[in-house]
Amino acid sequence: MSTDPRAGEAAEYVDPEVLEELLSMRASIDNIDATLVYLLAERFKATQRVGVLKAAHQLPPADPAREKNQIARLKRLAEDAQLDPEFAEKFLNFIIDEVIRHHQAISDSTSQQASGSSATVSSGSAVSPAARARPEAGSSTDRSA
Amino acid sequence: MSTDPRAGEAAEYVDPEVLEELLSMRASIDNIDATLVYLLAERFKATQRVGVLKAAHQLPPADPAREKNQIARLKRLAEDAQLDPEFAEKFLNFIIDEVIRHHQAISDSTSQQASGSSATVSSGSAVSPAARARPEAGSSTDRSA
Repeated sequence: MSTDPRAGEAAEYVDPEVLEELLSMRASIDNIDATLVYLLAERFKATQRVGVLKAAHQLPPADPAREKNQIARLKRLAEDAQLDPEFAEKFLNFIIDEVIRHHQAISDSTSQQASGSSATVSSGSAVSPAARARPEAGSSTDRSA
Repeated sequence: MSTDPRAGEAAEYVDPEVLEELLSMRASIDNIDATLVYLLAERFKATQRVGVLKAAHQLPPADPAREKNQIARLKRLAEDAQLDPEFAEKFLNFIIDEVIRHHQAISDSTSQQASGSSATVSSGSAVSPAARARPEAGSSTDRSA
């Protein structure tokens, strides 16, 4: 019987052959999850830069037209990938909620640096890792990036 | 002024140079989103196969030990990627909720095919696209895969 920690509690119930197949599938899932985490990190870096750009140029945070396009496109891609389009939309909204939290942190940081006047914000420096980690939720921030 | 549909409402407010930078960032975000959609589709294919395997071998659907390992690992990876570890955990839980919905559909389909006895399930055929698209939520299904 395998003692591979990835087996979890399944090791207690399964014959070795089935366990082997289960472990192989779980290894693939783990690889996919790692890729998702690193990809999400890149996505938040990109939206972070957009947030800084918008704050520096007094651009409106929300952009409903952009958001509508994003949702329609992702649903089309989801259909092509045989993923539930409704799930794709739910996923985008889940990500956007986090983007809102990040942008609120940028906005707070920018108003601290230059209240009222044209802010001089250098890319990436507006949000400390600590601020990014636990920003407060806000309502008037860029949803779509 | 650009009429690129990706500009959304930003085109009305921004000078061309800043708009160009914004569009370039948005193009990267769109590429990342497409990758995320196709990667998520692969992940659900994998958990779908796990669900069929478990249903065929009467394995317990939930595996708390496996899930605990997954969360701990993703948080480590998130730190390495400079992604908020709490967000990584929230993300995994979001995905797992969808896996539960899929597995409930497999479970329902399996009990329809062979009630009580050892089910003969051929990989992939247990869940129709329609059943995958709108499964009912259930409580006693595999959370971790």
